[in-house]
Amino acid sequence: MTTARLEAFSDGVIAVAITLLVLNIGVPSFAETKHHGLAHALWRNWPVYAAFLTSFLTIGIIWINHHVAIRRLREPDHAILFLNLLLLMSIAVLPFSTSLMATYLKQSQGQHLAAAIYSGALLVMALCFAALNRHMLLVKPHRLREELSLERRRQIFYRSFTGVIPYAIATALAVVSPYVTVAICSALAVFYAFPIGSGGSDPAG
Amino acid sequence: MTTARLEAFSDGVIAVAITLLVLNIGVPSFAETKHHGLAHALWRNWPVYAAFLTSFLTIGIIWINHHVAIRRLREPDHAILFLNLLLLMSIAVLPFSTSLMATYLKQSQGQHLAAAIYSGALLVMALCFAALNRHMLLVKPHRLREELSLERRRQIFYRSFTGVIPYAIATALAVVSPYVTVAICSALAVFYAFPIGSGGSDPAG
Amino acid sequence: MTTARLEAFSDGVIAVAITLLVLNIGVPSFAETKHHGLAHALWRNWPVYAAFLTSFLTIGIIWINHHVAIRRLREPDHAILFLNLLLLMSIAVLPFSTSLMATYLKQSQGQHLAAAIYSGALLVMALCFAALNRHMLLVKPHRLREELSLERRRQIFYRSFTGVIPYAIATALAVVSPYVTVAICSALAVFYAFPIGSGGSDPAG
Amino acid sequence: MTTARLEAFSDGVIAVAITLLVLNIGVPSFAETKHHGLAHALWRNWPVYAAFLTSFLTIGIIWINHHVAIRRLREPDHAILFLNLLLLMSIAVLPFSTSLMATYLKQSQGQHLAAAIYSGALLVMALCFAALNRHMLLVKPHRLREELSLERRRQIFYRSFTGVIPYAIATALAVVSPYVTVAICSALAVFYAFPIGSGGSDPAG
Repeated sequence: MTTARLEAFSDGVIAVAITLLVLNIGVPSFAETKHHGLAHALWRNWPVYAAFLTSFLTIGIIWINHHVAIRRLREPDHAILFLNLLLLMSIAVLPFSTSLMATYLKQSQGQHLAAAIYSGALLVMALCFAALNRHMLLVKPHRLREELSLERRRQIFYRSFTGVIPYAIATALAVVSPYVTVAICSALAVFYAFPIGSGGSDPAG
Repeated sequence: MTTARLEAFSDGVIAVAITLLVLNIGVPSFAETKHHGLAHALWRNWPVYAAFLTSFLTIGIIWINHHVAIRRLREPDHAILFLNLLLLMSIAVLPFSTSLMATYLKQSQGQHLAAAIYSGALLVMALCFAALNRHMLLVKPHRLREELSLERRRQIFYRSFTGVIPYAIATALAVVSPYVTVAICSALAVFYAFPIGSGGSDPAG
Repeated sequence: MTTARLEAFSDGVIAVAITLLVLNIGVPSFAETKHHGLAHALWRNWPVYAAFLTSFLTIGIIWINHHVAIRRLREPDHAILFLNLLLLMSIAVLPFSTSLMATYLKQSQGQHLAAAIYSGALLVMALCFAALNRHMLLVKPHRLREELSLERRRQIFYRSFTGVIPYAIATALAVVSPYVTVAICSALAVFYAFPIGSGGSDPAG
Repeated sequence: MTTARLEAFSDGVIAVAITLLVLNIGVPSFAETKHHGLAHALWRNWPVYAAFLTSFLTIGIIWINHHVAIRRLREPDHAILFLNLLLLMSIAVLPFSTSLMATYLKQSQGQHLAAAIYSGALLVMALCFAALNRHMLLVKPHRLREELSLERRRQIFYRSFTGVIPYAIATALAVVSPYVTVAICSALAVFYAFPIGSGGSDPAG
């Protein structure tokens, strides 16, 4: 197994998952637009657009980080293939959790749980990415393309692990307010995606 | 991050988005064909086919232009990754805006707004592409593969920027007639796609 | 534009289109299985499976032929990009025409038209492929990777053009019987796909 | 035809199929959550999540095995392209069989058949993979990249063939209990995916 094909397959899954997000943006039915018009029906759907933007940027960032991480690798072993598959699974599930959150964010019933699942799915994704990095940097460092000092490898791993913390906080805060949870996830996406936060999105520093 | 993987991921997203357009072409239900037959039910759906053709050609053209633009690059920086992600997002959204326009084009209620959103999404896509080109050509020219004179770089940027103008006009004209808006978008797709308009679709000249 | 990226993008579109075919295979609803059970509900759906098999094999064959054709090319010009985009569009539309045919094949109303559209879509695909081959082999032979005699180029083009004929016959026969039309399309898929028909599926001879 | 493009296309189909699995995870409707809440509605859907996890891991494993097998090849012939196309078809069908199983697993009517079809589809996939391996290793060994002894080639083939047996048993046991069938498929996915079962998932030994 070469890293080239590992990257190609991962790129494929991530590209499909990020593009499938659009299927969550439904066209309002004629029944929905009958009384208040199309503009109102679209406007009422704002959680759908917010969810699309947040998830699209987040998957885009994880794609960049994934590439930076895999490039360090000379050759994957079975554990890396497995951890990478778990990471891809956590990404492939995002169109579902995004749709769930967008559907229930404004409902009095289920809004806390839906926001917790949305943020929780991103937390799992961040954990999978940290586990992949940990295995590559600390468990099997002899498979890296270049030799890195233990200190440097630890530093890269801790930096990728710190990405877990804000999602854990966001998930916990779903008990208080689903809007706060989603706002944190959106803010993280914008912070990491915008060039100003580029240091944070590049775990290689 | 290499331009090769940037291209591969962008190709993936664009290929999925262009192929997902077909999901908008629904098979008529038996209820729809009961009274006037299948031919009539299909015929009534003409905005769906027109929308499919226009969006497919338009995404195909942006794919060609994207490739020409990225090939000029030696190595992307974070701002280019971010601007490219915005461009991909504006492309990934097109199956939705295409479906919205096709659904509401013939409705008395919402047809102006739906056409404006359709054309407006293409306008945003053209703006993202121009912003990507501007950054590559005018802000970070030292990352280009070959050295180009300032005059040449400005010329390429302005040419890609002029692609914005017809979409801005088409969007504005949605107030007058949604059909005019869509007709302009279709005409642009055909003009740029057909070999006769190839000069225009190749911002590298 | 390199042939490598032309192939990569074409591969992407074809891979998505061939895999989207599965979305046409619906899971029977509980209402459908209530009276006669799941086995009966699945059995009644046989046109859906026949359509899936036929379209999957046909797209698989066109993918092989497309690769053989593009490999002959040194570098695409704008006309080739355009003709290739038309070919990809004719492939991307197949999940729709497949679903249409499968839905209406057993209906007394619309079955002839649905079969004609199914076969007609494959005819258009074969015509697009022949047009691409014609341009590459007869209009711009200086862009081929290796020099081929006019006789050889004509032979390859005519061989790819003969693929059009059976689809034209199948489409015309939809007036007589939709089952005959679909049976011809299925037979062609099996004939070209099975190793025994490999001479026919490889226009490079 | 090069193995590189065979791999690229296969990667594309497998990546789309594995990601389409998420479309089976539906968001509960407001009607479903009205009386017992969202948590209950999600919980009742557990077969959907179990099916997603099992199919995702299984497709991930077949992707790894496919890559290992194709890498042995110097150049594919038409029979390999055909057998590979059959394998891809058996993978592309899994989002359907997965959804069928998840929908009917808890229904008194159809649960045995749905589980048999789910396991049977995986059996067909394992058979297609064994047939591809047989052709490459035993029928056309001169197309392999490296020369391998007959004994070694037989050993690799038999190892890949033994993957068929547990799926045959699982399919047969659907007569007794659909839960046992699905549990076997899930256990196989976990066994092969986890690093501890890596010997089994790597037919190259």
